[in-house]
Amino acid sequence: MRIAIVGAGALGLYYGALLQRSGEDVHFLLRRDYDAITTQGLRVFSVNGDFTLPHVHGYRDPAEIGTVDLVLVGLKTFANGSFSELIGPLAGDSTQILTLQNGLGNEEALAELFGEQRIIGGVAFLCSNRGEPGEVHHLGEGRIVLGEYRLCDRERVEHLAAVFSKTGVDCRVTDDLKRSRWEKLVWNIPFNGLCALLQQPVNILLAHDACRKLVREIMLEVIAGANAQGLTRPIAEGYADTMLKFTDDMGEYKPSMQIDREEGRQMEIAAILRAPLAYGRQQGIDMPRVEMLATLLEQVTR
Amino acid sequence: MRIAIVGAGALGLYYGALLQRSGEDVHFLLRRDYDAITTQGLRVFSVNGDFTLPHVHGYRDPAEIGTVDLVLVGLKTFANGSFSELIGPLAGDSTQILTLQNGLGNEEALAELFGEQRIIGGVAFLCSNRGEPGEVHHLGEGRIVLGEYRLCDRERVEHLAAVFSKTGVDCRVTDDLKRSRWEKLVWNIPFNGLCALLQQPVNILLAHDACRKLVREIMLEVIAGANAQGLTRPIAEGYADTMLKFTDDMGEYKPSMQIDREEGRQMEIAAILRAPLAYGRQQGIDMPRVEMLATLLEQVTR
Repeated sequence: MRIAIVGAGALGLYYGALLQRSGEDVHFLLRRDYDAITTQGLRVFSVNGDFTLPHVHGYRDPAEIGTVDLVLVGLKTFANGSFSELIGPLAGDSTQILTLQNGLGNEEALAELFGEQRIIGGVAFLCSNRGEPGEVHHLGEGRIVLGEYRLCDRERVEHLAAVFSKTGVDCRVTDDLKRSRWEKLVWNIPFNGLCALLQQPVNILLAHDACRKLVREIMLEVIAGANAQGLTRPIAEGYADTMLKFTDDMGEYKPSMQIDREEGRQMEIAAILRAPLAYGRQQGIDMPRVEMLATLLEQVTR
Repeated sequence: MRIAIVGAGALGLYYGALLQRSGEDVHFLLRRDYDAITTQGLRVFSVNGDFTLPHVHGYRDPAEIGTVDLVLVGLKTFANGSFSELIGPLAGDSTQILTLQNGLGNEEALAELFGEQRIIGGVAFLCSNRGEPGEVHHLGEGRIVLGEYRLCDRERVEHLAAVFSKTGVDCRVTDDLKRSRWEKLVWNIPFNGLCALLQQPVNILLAHDACRKLVREIMLEVIAGANAQGLTRPIAEGYADTMLKFTDDMGEYKPSMQIDREEGRQMEIAAILRAPLAYGRQQGIDMPRVEMLATLLEQVTR
């Protein structure tokens, strides 16, 4: 499968490397890592075992890649304004576009530009960080849930899941992409938001009862917002406790938004917090703590 | 009137200076400012006109002061554990104790130690900051509302109000001290809390719609908490808008809790946020945003 990775950060580099290692024909659109990767290759430090890809196809311009079978989109959501410029040259008649980005609204934006029938959404439960140029660090997890934006060709998505499974990634297909997106938000909203605001990793938050309670309350607000969206089946409140326990095992993990703030990058407040708030409000669900968190995050970057 | 100032910070120094200037016999218990004030006096930089008191009675030990007619308590509330040690030596049979401290729970703690009949509460609406040792900066406002902790001798409080009025301070007496305390909390909770958390002065908060809305929502939670406390008359929701407009005129003002955080001091989270939350909860009122703010403030000092 001829694959282009657009948005080759911690997520794009990691999955792109796995896909190349398992035999796919992978082409990375690069910026910061261009020189390092095209001269020295890509090094993956992974809890599943380190490996190096000495020869990697790296590009600065999507036109040099040309059309592909699959575009894997790992861009930060605040770069969604560049979809047309970055993905347009890659999209032929049968190109599928898979977004593994955070938050809500990405499939919609891609569908608007490239047609809804070719859009596949994926929710990646991945702990990874960028390292030095040419390096990516995989700290844990990695499973992917894939789903079509508009259900039309289940077989196509099953095939794509098989491609990911072949790399060793736990990949399953859902008929309710929206539910999977909201499930991830149950984790992403409190931990990305609070860790970025307080500049503390997840274990510091969870070590203090009042803060752990706040995380849980935020999760319950997100679950209420999710369950108002007409999901195939509701997310149980117990999912919050499952996520808390799951996070207890992560140690000193810094979510991406915390790292974005530390490194002076923009934070994905719009996709991860404001979009879910708007979807909730459309269904009459207020999420006061989520809204307060969004407002505080916006305010610290003033 | 023989008066001891215990807790000679921005508030204690300012009112103590006004009382001495108007002819009262004022004795300051000092720590940081002891050397500066006992050798060079006390300088007041005030929007109402600067003045200097060249000779000020300063002490390091309350036993040197002996008993007084009035103890004015301006301590940070996290120092309330020192009430006995600091105020005990000053309290004779007829000594009145006036607390102008922030938040809730101070009269209760003083009453427990010294008897409820001698406790007077005061709510000071004052914008002031400490400057260099021996200096205090009065940036605006300054009015005081006085009330007895347990109503028993209105005349005594009227007399005290007259003493303050003689200094030029707008001072009135209330029969509902609790209501005045909560009125001040309507301002104190959002502005002290958010400015300290975000490390931004009030004008930066109010310049952005989402944050201004958050301030107002927090105010409405506090008003709901207040109105569950059996006040003589409820605080109207419009009070929130009055306070917002009032704060618009303050410019780049930093509330005391923000300065405490900047200077690495403890913050008055217990008295200003946690105590009102507990009083609200006793009456079945949840204040989710106030609770989130308290939790975030506690967490940033971990």
